[in-house]
Amino acid sequence: MKLPSSTEWVLHCATTLAQLDQGETASAAQLAAYYDLPAPYLAKQLQSLVRAGVLTATTGPRGGFRLARAAGEITLLEVIDAVTGATQPYECREIRQQGAGALPPEDCRDACILATKMADAYDAWRGALAGESLADVLAGIPASAPERTRTKLRATRTGP
Amino acid sequence: MKLPSSTEWVLHCATTLAQLDQGETASAAQLAAYYDLPAPYLAKQLQSLVRAGVLTATTGPRGGFRLARAAGEITLLEVIDAVTGATQPYECREIRQQGAGALPPEDCRDACILATKMADAYDAWRGALAGESLADVLAGIPASAPERTRTKLRATRTGP
Repeated sequence: MKLPSSTEWVLHCATTLAQLDQGETASAAQLAAYYDLPAPYLAKQLQSLVRAGVLTATTGPRGGFRLARAAGEITLLEVIDAVTGATQPYECREIRQQGAGALPPEDCRDACILATKMADAYDAWRGALAGESLADVLAGIPASAPERTRTKLRATRTGP
Repeated sequence: MKLPSSTEWVLHCATTLAQLDQGETASAAQLAAYYDLPAPYLAKQLQSLVRAGVLTATTGPRGGFRLARAAGEITLLEVIDAVTGATQPYECREIRQQGAGALPPEDCRDACILATKMADAYDAWRGALAGESLADVLAGIPASAPERTRTKLRATRTGP
């Protein structure tokens, strides 16, 4: 059970964008340089965050990405779902209905109890991440970090 | 984020073994026929359950697998960990320490807060599955199911 490595990328990029001043943006190239990540692939992940309503993309010479909403209103779950697609880690292939022990269809109207319990566990995971916002993340980093982030990120700006 | 399809196999096989009479066993070949699964690969998964202390393997003409402990003392988490190895789905590659924005080592003595929150979510998933035993699963199936399971499983017995 593995999340793609881009999960770490988008969590960090969203956290970084949450530290920008109002109206400020960062481009995919800037964020890629900031974390030494492959820019084209990171850009695709950031576009997924835009489609999911987590980020807003602006164009123009000072264009780039910023949070679509306040940091306190964006959960880690939303960020992760945007790049993973929110699929159940447990796949029930209904093996209860196959083989010598196959249950008849009338005994399978309800979801398999094992699938139900696995879904409950996935809900617990989702609930934990839905209860953590980007503001909660910022509350856990040193008070001096945001200013440092802004300064270092601006130094990665290329072009006008 | 995907669990291997063998997760469904071992959960169902463990549930099936939990329905056997005291002292009764089922072989890998029987369980494979019962669920129409590839016997050699299933046998490997069942051996993983033996190594994890979930099942006991007995040899001899009536040998096979049985639960190593009472159904109420075996959790779904143990069954799953046996085949997946209990690895964190989120891999923190410490991208906070790389690129133009790299944090100095002295700022990284504590675990990354994002990794911590991801670990908390994984713990929530594990906690949900640690709170469900095979006995809890049996409590959720029809009262007539265990007798049917035993009868059908015995019909898959080959050899002496």
